[in-house]
Amino acid sequence: MSLIIIGSVAFDTIETPSGRRDRIIGGSGTYAALAAAFFTRPGLVSVVGQDFPRRFFQQLRARGIDLAGLKVKKGKTFHWHGRYGRDPNQRTTIKTELNVLREFRPVLPPDYRRADVVFLSNLDPESHDFILEQLPAVKLVAMDTIRFWIENKAEALLRAIHKVDILFVNDEECRLIARELNLVRAGRKLQAAGPKIIVVKKGEHGAMLFGKNFVFGVVANPCEQVVDPTGAGDAFAGAFLGYLDSAGRFNQRELRKAAVYGNLVASLVIEDFGVEGLLRADQLDLIKRYQSFRKLVSF
Amino acid sequence: MSLIIIGSVAFDTIETPSGRRDRIIGGSGTYAALAAAFFTRPGLVSVVGQDFPRRFFQQLRARGIDLAGLKVKKGKTFHWHGRYGRDPNQRTTIKTELNVLREFRPVLPPDYRRADVVFLSNLDPESHDFILEQLPAVKLVAMDTIRFWIENKAEALLRAIHKVDILFVNDEECRLIARELNLVRAGRKLQAAGPKIIVVKKGEHGAMLFGKNFVFGVVANPCEQVVDPTGAGDAFAGAFLGYLDSAGRFNQRELRKAAVYGNLVASLVIEDFGVEGLLRADQLDLIKRYQSFRKLVSF
Repeated sequence: MSLIIIGSVAFDTIETPSGRRDRIIGGSGTYAALAAAFFTRPGLVSVVGQDFPRRFFQQLRARGIDLAGLKVKKGKTFHWHGRYGRDPNQRTTIKTELNVLREFRPVLPPDYRRADVVFLSNLDPESHDFILEQLPAVKLVAMDTIRFWIENKAEALLRAIHKVDILFVNDEECRLIARELNLVRAGRKLQAAGPKIIVVKKGEHGAMLFGKNFVFGVVANPCEQVVDPTGAGDAFAGAFLGYLDSAGRFNQRELRKAAVYGNLVASLVIEDFGVEGLLRADQLDLIKRYQSFRKLVSF
Repeated sequence: MSLIIIGSVAFDTIETPSGRRDRIIGGSGTYAALAAAFFTRPGLVSVVGQDFPRRFFQQLRARGIDLAGLKVKKGKTFHWHGRYGRDPNQRTTIKTELNVLREFRPVLPPDYRRADVVFLSNLDPESHDFILEQLPAVKLVAMDTIRFWIENKAEALLRAIHKVDILFVNDEECRLIARELNLVRAGRKLQAAGPKIIVVKKGEHGAMLFGKNFVFGVVANPCEQVVDPTGAGDAFAGAFLGYLDSAGRFNQRELRKAAVYGNLVASLVIEDFGVEGLLRADQLDLIKRYQSFRKLVSF
């Protein structure tokens, strides 16, 4: 096991101007793992309740995702219910039922403890140490976060950020954590706080990567029909790390390509509800998307 | 005379968190002409009052701008007074004194009537026909607009758009005119309304170009210190058209490069007050900026 992803596996109920889906498979871990699976065979560490359908396990395994770290616990699966406005950036959370996720304390299967790359996805920053102690040989630690931890566990978050190699944030989170409105300065400020690499996801505006001695900027893949933005950021990070894991090198060249792949896999996600866009696409589709994106941005 | 620019020459009073400047030289025509002057020798058609200092004429001429079309009329020069918040996208207009610009009816000097490229910058859309009738040999007509015309002369604006080859809009204007929230669909919708090329300026997020059978996307040049955003959009358009005029070809390759140069010259503008950033830079600075931008976006 080379890349492991620790995050949520959930039921999502999603309302958008394009329609509504009830209790479809979601969660940051799910999106990240499906995205990474375009490039590598990730291990997914999470917890679901006994109500979680077996066909969802099959869907994930069919994409090459290892589920040895996915525990089934007595109780109900985490359920998130959200609604998007006509502007896909406007999101309202209607309900968050943590259920079995509430006491999620990830113990890694023995195999997973040799992982090279780990993604700590939206976790309580206070849980990071417990996980990292189980990963003595890890070469690359990546994390992202959510507004909730920024607002409620700011100090623990800063300590956690200090210990990772890659921090994924969206532009709003980047400004919030750095307390700095200018995104370039905010990115550099976060970089000074520890992580070698800051990846700022800007949604429809693409992404910026602050690396050691370089900055990389990339536009988003233009999308005429945003059906459901859920999970786009998680998929970005999953594809980014999946690509890096498959490349086996974390140099500037590979980091730039990783951000482009993150971008492109995120564009697959938003074109359909839930993980449908990810499940429908195969590696060939992604290569085609990469080629037309290269044309789009070339000058 | 190959490129002529018709727009305002003004006094600007500007307040930003970085400071305040009183009655410095501004106006859409000024920014566009100074930006174009990196590539070509544009003619500037505008009107100022008798209060306009001669040293400003000298500054413009020193950059290779032809002022045969700049009339001095009895009265006061157009004066705009604006204030920016800590977020440079938040702009408040404190005062707009049109003065001599109120009755601006651009009669082109005989030389200018052989122009290949014309830029109609922020003009009343009802004035376009009067100008275009004086340009029988023009090969490329470009325009931009402001929210005021979108809201107050919507029909005339759509008729004007129908007659141009290139329309410059910012993302907000693009959505407003097209009545469409999705920027890609909005761009295509405007393209269907007439112009071969739609250039959407997205400020800190770069630009998108909708051409015949292609789309081009480019990020903005990252800027750590936005001092004064005034004129960035006008400079983008001026550099874009100045580059095209110097290239002498309007094909896909040149259009893409034009957008990159537009981007880079706009980044010069915002780094200092008024036209200071434009005046301080020379062609060599721009070439250097182009080279480091290429590195920034390469993958």
